[in-house]
Amino acid sequence: MTATVGEFLYQCLQREGMTEIFGVPGDFNFPLLDTLEAYEGLRFIDNRNELNAGYAADGYAHVKGMAALITTFGVGELSASNAIAGAYSENIPLIHIVGSPDSNDQKEKRKIHHSLMDGDFEVFRRIHEHMTGYAVKITAENAGFKIPKAIRIAKEKKKPVYLDFPMDQVLQPVIWRGEEEESAEVTEEASLHAALAQAKELLDQAKHTVLLVDFNTLRYDLEHHVQTLAEKMNVPVAQMLQGKSGFDEEHPQYIGMYAGAFGNQEVRVKVEEADCIIAVGLLWTDFNTAKYTANIAPEKLIAVHPRSVAVAEREYEKIDAVDGLKALQALDYRENGKVETFPSIYDDVVGEPEERLSAATYYPRFQHMLKQDDVMIIDTGTLSYGMSQVRLPSGALFISHGAWQSIGYATPAALGAAIAADNRRVLLFIGEGALQFSVQELSTLIENGCKPIIFILNNQGYTIERYLNIEHPFADYNDIPRWDHMTLAEGFAGTGDLFKTEVRTNGELDEAIRRAEQYDGMSLIELIVTDPMDAPEYLHKLRENEMEA
Amino acid sequence: MTATVGEFLYQCLQREGMTEIFGVPGDFNFPLLDTLEAYEGLRFIDNRNELNAGYAADGYAHVKGMAALITTFGVGELSASNAIAGAYSENIPLIHIVGSPDSNDQKEKRKIHHSLMDGDFEVFRRIHEHMTGYAVKITAENAGFKIPKAIRIAKEKKKPVYLDFPMDQVLQPVIWRGEEEESAEVTEEASLHAALAQAKELLDQAKHTVLLVDFNTLRYDLEHHVQTLAEKMNVPVAQMLQGKSGFDEEHPQYIGMYAGAFGNQEVRVKVEEADCIIAVGLLWTDFNTAKYTANIAPEKLIAVHPRSVAVAEREYEKIDAVDGLKALQALDYRENGKVETFPSIYDDVVGEPEERLSAATYYPRFQHMLKQDDVMIIDTGTLSYGMSQVRLPSGALFISHGAWQSIGYATPAALGAAIAADNRRVLLFIGEGALQFSVQELSTLIENGCKPIIFILNNQGYTIERYLNIEHPFADYNDIPRWDHMTLAEGFAGTGDLFKTEVRTNGELDEAIRRAEQYDGMSLIELIVTDPMDAPEYLHKLRENEMEA
Repeated sequence: MTATVGEFLYQCLQREGMTEIFGVPGDFNFPLLDTLEAYEGLRFIDNRNELNAGYAADGYAHVKGMAALITTFGVGELSASNAIAGAYSENIPLIHIVGSPDSNDQKEKRKIHHSLMDGDFEVFRRIHEHMTGYAVKITAENAGFKIPKAIRIAKEKKKPVYLDFPMDQVLQPVIWRGEEEESAEVTEEASLHAALAQAKELLDQAKHTVLLVDFNTLRYDLEHHVQTLAEKMNVPVAQMLQGKSGFDEEHPQYIGMYAGAFGNQEVRVKVEEADCIIAVGLLWTDFNTAKYTANIAPEKLIAVHPRSVAVAEREYEKIDAVDGLKALQALDYRENGKVETFPSIYDDVVGEPEERLSAATYYPRFQHMLKQDDVMIIDTGTLSYGMSQVRLPSGALFISHGAWQSIGYATPAALGAAIAADNRRVLLFIGEGALQFSVQELSTLIENGCKPIIFILNNQGYTIERYLNIEHPFADYNDIPRWDHMTLAEGFAGTGDLFKTEVRTNGELDEAIRRAEQYDGMSLIELIVTDPMDAPEYLHKLRENEMEA
Repeated sequence: MTATVGEFLYQCLQREGMTEIFGVPGDFNFPLLDTLEAYEGLRFIDNRNELNAGYAADGYAHVKGMAALITTFGVGELSASNAIAGAYSENIPLIHIVGSPDSNDQKEKRKIHHSLMDGDFEVFRRIHEHMTGYAVKITAENAGFKIPKAIRIAKEKKKPVYLDFPMDQVLQPVIWRGEEEESAEVTEEASLHAALAQAKELLDQAKHTVLLVDFNTLRYDLEHHVQTLAEKMNVPVAQMLQGKSGFDEEHPQYIGMYAGAFGNQEVRVKVEEADCIIAVGLLWTDFNTAKYTANIAPEKLIAVHPRSVAVAEREYEKIDAVDGLKALQALDYRENGKVETFPSIYDDVVGEPEERLSAATYYPRFQHMLKQDDVMIIDTGTLSYGMSQVRLPSGALFISHGAWQSIGYATPAALGAAIAADNRRVLLFIGEGALQFSVQELSTLIENGCKPIIFILNNQGYTIERYLNIEHPFADYNDIPRWDHMTLAEGFAGTGDLFKTEVRTNGELDEAIRRAEQYDGMSLIELIVTDPMDAPEYLHKLRENEMEA
């Protein structure tokens, strides 16, 4: 029997390893959801709104490699658009599936609800063209090759794609017409040879080389190849902020995070004074470069990108990163002796038990509690700067918006990660300001039996913005309504159960962590910090730097 | 002294009668917000997220005629996009003000946070071009004429507009270069005469004429002209769903809502059997026409649109609606005798006090409690169908998404309406499913001292979707997590105060309304209805109609 368009879609998604799809119901996606409800092996996770569904899918993709969400025409898909553009910015393959009005209503240009009332049913697809790798309307005639094509583009480009399903098409059998030719991207040998020759010249003159692990190492699953290269070369390895958890921070060659003027200065010297820097998946952003205080001489840089290699600013196109890394491994560059490493600023648990919590005391405690393979989701704010400087155990996954930095991302992303993570522990770190954007997704976590440990850092408003707005740290607009988070959590839990507590001192935090680790369910620990300018060392340096400028 | 770009923007908004601007802070809009905080006579209302800010601005515009919101580049503006497109669909003039990165960073195509990391800083403006009447980047050089132009377009076209302010431009003095020519749209006399001649022919043959009030009557402030026409002609007046509160429902000529097969059948007969129908601001949507069961013979129709008139399907362009209505008034068509009116189905308060609540008993109670000049906000769901059939007192304003129907709109819109409404009473009617989308805005209502009466209709899931999905009313995806709304409200209120109660019987609802009306603060009344298929008569008819089809 021929699959319907909806069934074929789910077969394709299942083939990519998905077992869940996120989203929100709406009348135009009923056929998609009814097909899904009857389909074996794929489960629908119902979110509280579409932006949260998009974020949840993004978190899921961080763990499983790819994710999908289903929204409804107009209202639903646009609500998710911040998450879709975020996936574009952050190189996350998301499949955005939209249920749209009946083809006939579209053809007749009827004034259907959820439309702009101008008979244009292509407008939302055109909007998505600006922020996806591919955006297409699916019909029974084209489903057979357009759906696989969309998934292939998402995988190859690490970008979201958009599939519009007119509701009547979903239940039609797929009309098979043979697939379009796929243009597999393969490495061009001549380009690789030329790149390698120039890289060899650079390495031949180098005494001290450093390997720098960044963003696309994670996105293109290059971790293993990078580690092999590091070990063959026996060189120090540092990470950029957006590449965090791309390299095992317990590895004997790992020296720490490189973050220009705001991070560890020993690491900075090591990186900037190396004769050669091999950077994998490098992204030169304001965040990643610590506001451009990072300083890597281009003539010393070998940059391995997903589909190209640059040596001393000369670009060599059409080189797959895996081929590039393997070729570098084969060069037989190797340094002698044990790599000199440096302590992380949070290695020592400091602060007396009865003392009030501050950044200097809670970050070491977070570092101390982390376990192998933990999945951590960190929202944008002071926490994303502070947590970036925490040393992670092997296998830990660090999920945070380095590029897109959409406040409110982490709560729904933690849901997605928790659904995807099976038996791995999930930890959510979020400021009380960021929590307000998408707080309702706490209820979806509880509803689905997820058991994250959630740390709410309550520092009296948008502290990160107090740091970024040097001249007006106490502007009214950085204040937010004060919520009673313990009571709220009860309200969201309904009849469900959770462990929740407020902590004000170091000792209370220690005790709360101990109890959360023993509790078999969701835990919510609110850190109440009274200083609205409480922030990690990193941000103090950033602020000093801005004030000097 | 010359105003800065930011100050000039606020002067222009103030001139339109605004006293508040909604939004969410973000680093790229700091100069806009700092200027606003120092500016006299305009206040910033800080929302919990940008979608809610957009909805709040929309609610405010319903009361004050126009509204503005401030978001930040990328993340913020896209979060609001559902509300912006909603304003487009619903003909609401919104000014979407976006703070973007420094012009220099844009020119150098830096990989700045909140961007797509491809150096393209125009992409979000291009996205907004699809869903606004005008989208422009503001500089010190063009602010003097582009800001007034944007506001003029918003006012004339009743559409949202988009203004992108690179952060460095906001503090620059406006460079005056004289304004662009404005093309004021005036009525073309010849067109008006021709339209009128044909309309007169139609009316000359008519014994029974009906005036039908719809959508754009409200949007283009035609209420007064429509009432004058009705009184001069002495004809029955009916309203369409999307035109509700466009005509005084206590007026002696008002006969009720016209909603095809699902509404009052006496009204239906009166409208459909009239010899001539004068429709003002008519929008032929699926919702408005009760799924196209409305049936108006085109050859009997005089349709007065905002910028044109159609008589028996012949279009006459370039006629302003006010001129069209005045010309029709001058025709001296007049019927004799008292207009026959019909009762609303909810005129009688029925149901014993100890009986459980049901649609048949709570809608009459809602109708009964309404007062002159109340501002009502109704979310999409069973309530929007049921409340459409409630008879309103004079001056009551009915705010609901007839075209866009974005679930979750009403809570933030109630905030906007409450901020705008001064001393008018604000009532929010929302299902417990819709509440989940944007629940955090309850805290903004409390934070700002707003005093709405909020009715949460808890009918055990997405009841409206159970009605719309005829074959699968009990699909899993229409279930939602159960919240304890009373506890949640406490959590959001923080240290604030509110009156809150759950009601299950008619008597409890009567008592709760009585207490809410005496309480000086926000009231929250949760109606707990155990039947998940509890719905107004209108939806029962809709479902029967679908099942027959």
